[in-house]
Amino acid sequence: MNEPASRTEAAIAATPEHRLKDELDIVIPTIRNLDFLEMWRPFFQPYHLIIVQDGDPLRTIKVPNGFDYELYNRNDINRILGPKASCISFKDSACRCFGYMVSRKKYIFTIDDDCFVAKDPTGKAINALEQHIKNLLSPSAPFFFNTLYDPFADGADFVRGYPFSLREGVPTAVSHGLWLNIPDYDAPTQLVKPLERNTRYVNAVLSIPKGTLFPMCGMNLAFDRRLIGPAMYFGLMGEGQPIGRYDDMWAGWCIKVICDHLGLGVKTGLPYIYHSKASNPFVNLRKEYKGIYWQEEIIPFFQQVVLPKDCTTVQKCYVHLAKQVKEKLGKLDPYFDKLAEAMVTWIQAWDELNPSSAALSNGKRG
Amino acid sequence: MNEPASRTEAAIAATPEHRLKDELDIVIPTIRNLDFLEMWRPFFQPYHLIIVQDGDPLRTIKVPNGFDYELYNRNDINRILGPKASCISFKDSACRCFGYMVSRKKYIFTIDDDCFVAKDPTGKAINALEQHIKNLLSPSAPFFFNTLYDPFADGADFVRGYPFSLREGVPTAVSHGLWLNIPDYDAPTQLVKPLERNTRYVNAVLSIPKGTLFPMCGMNLAFDRRLIGPAMYFGLMGEGQPIGRYDDMWAGWCIKVICDHLGLGVKTGLPYIYHSKASNPFVNLRKEYKGIYWQEEIIPFFQQVVLPKDCTTVQKCYVHLAKQVKEKLGKLDPYFDKLAEAMVTWIQAWDELNPSSAALSNGKRG
Repeated sequence: MNEPASRTEAAIAATPEHRLKDELDIVIPTIRNLDFLEMWRPFFQPYHLIIVQDGDPLRTIKVPNGFDYELYNRNDINRILGPKASCISFKDSACRCFGYMVSRKKYIFTIDDDCFVAKDPTGKAINALEQHIKNLLSPSAPFFFNTLYDPFADGADFVRGYPFSLREGVPTAVSHGLWLNIPDYDAPTQLVKPLERNTRYVNAVLSIPKGTLFPMCGMNLAFDRRLIGPAMYFGLMGEGQPIGRYDDMWAGWCIKVICDHLGLGVKTGLPYIYHSKASNPFVNLRKEYKGIYWQEEIIPFFQQVVLPKDCTTVQKCYVHLAKQVKEKLGKLDPYFDKLAEAMVTWIQAWDELNPSSAALSNGKRG
Repeated sequence: MNEPASRTEAAIAATPEHRLKDELDIVIPTIRNLDFLEMWRPFFQPYHLIIVQDGDPLRTIKVPNGFDYELYNRNDINRILGPKASCISFKDSACRCFGYMVSRKKYIFTIDDDCFVAKDPTGKAINALEQHIKNLLSPSAPFFFNTLYDPFADGADFVRGYPFSLREGVPTAVSHGLWLNIPDYDAPTQLVKPLERNTRYVNAVLSIPKGTLFPMCGMNLAFDRRLIGPAMYFGLMGEGQPIGRYDDMWAGWCIKVICDHLGLGVKTGLPYIYHSKASNPFVNLRKEYKGIYWQEEIIPFFQQVVLPKDCTTVQKCYVHLAKQVKEKLGKLDPYFDKLAEAMVTWIQAWDELNPSSAALSNGKRG
């Protein structure tokens, strides 16, 4: 587990079956050539990629031959969204959420371009995408803790004492994968433990219990767009904003509160990817320091927020949440007023680009 | 992982250090000779054992040479507790909680006599007791989920986005270990999956989040008597009772609600033991069927119960819980009236045998 799998190992591990290949898009935010895709070729090539190019739109991003992709740079985003493009971050990987919005597929897998194929303890290359699909296609059990972890995994079940009425589970909206090698630490922890590497392979997937928040990392993440897509907004980060590296955290708090309200599941655990390089802790500290301070108030806010019963769709939940953010977090910093407005803009843009989802949200089913 | 460790393997794996050997008792409920201790000798021999003999008190239980133990049969329990002995179950492993009450140590480890030394994936014999001690001596983090599992484990930490104000954690009151080979399934699952074996070794310990209940199994369990002892009552089961195999479940629901209220932690995961034989599913079904039905109402009760602020000790919490059980579950079956009374009797007996704990409970500190 101390080095990533080679391309050959990945090729050997790849199964001929590529599940959901017409129902899933892979979203990759990037500022560089996508050589990392060579490693993933055996697993990703049959899928469609949505590449969101951050930074200078004039730069050319090279994509290895043979991949089916669409690429959006800042000019594309501005052209497609018009004034609503203001809700999409610039010079921050938060821009990836534009890819969620333009996708036409049911499922999204998003991965960072410094993530490689990891190996399991037997040395086998891990097909991260396949495990995410397994996670998303099997139910979650967020209402009671199952001590043998995912009861829907092969060779596992609900243990003695697990209420039978809860064994059907609920649909899984989000699958959060983990990282071997460089752990996803904040700048202070990076500074204090520069040499720490994650070598612990934990062979488990679990449902995050209802009412419990978690730090969602966007590096290796999959979700069901139809169940939770409109809440997967990565906020305002990067250029012109007072904060960075909280894009995925923000989305994680929002989606968890909304999943809990709507009775949807969030899983974490397998699959692992191999995270190759630590970002600069000094740069990270500059981006994070306000977030580190603010999260001490933001998290209690999300722990206490209540969504009213008539919020029956993700869009309605999200707009209500935006209102609460303005009311309760606006006093922390004017940034949250701006963020709350961007949350509403995001939903408007989502509904424009996804008219059938918008119709559902307005109660026009079928 | 498909067979238990041999005695030699256990001896090789044993560390010369036996932590807390003067502060921990091992409680074993049994009806048979304790040959299983031979396997555990390298790990258990330096510790004091409390053996609670169930069933016929005239039967002689053989304990392998070299172990330091005290043994209580039903006659002893009746003699020591007098009329209060009514709160201790007979012909059910629930009787083990008598051992928790008579212990004079800070920590308890309890294990069933059909549990053997398991091996980790490298083939090394697992010192279950040592892992429980690690779990109990390091804090828990129940207020926010850490995606890399136990942040206090070697090579691990809190991930990005984990609030710094919560990183100190809270004291750990309970360490719940797991089982390889025969999983702890209820009778219906045993009947449906007679051949299922647990071979999945999950290398993780995690804090069960605040507000989340779990099915606590008494097979491989450790706790801090001073933090949670008086709530570790295994209820009324077995002879003369309408239910069995819910002793540990009952205790699990009670301790979790009280730990949440008092700000204490409950961990689950490592260590594994090797569970050697499945109990008879037909007998289990007879014992369990009322519990399977009742738990559909009991669990919502425990999910909703609120302990008032003035319940500042485990005893006060527990007596309050007993009152709520009578009020809210009494209508389910008269059994719960009897159980509520036994819960109060248990606390009286606990305080009699543990006068310093009782004094603390009444606010006389120091």
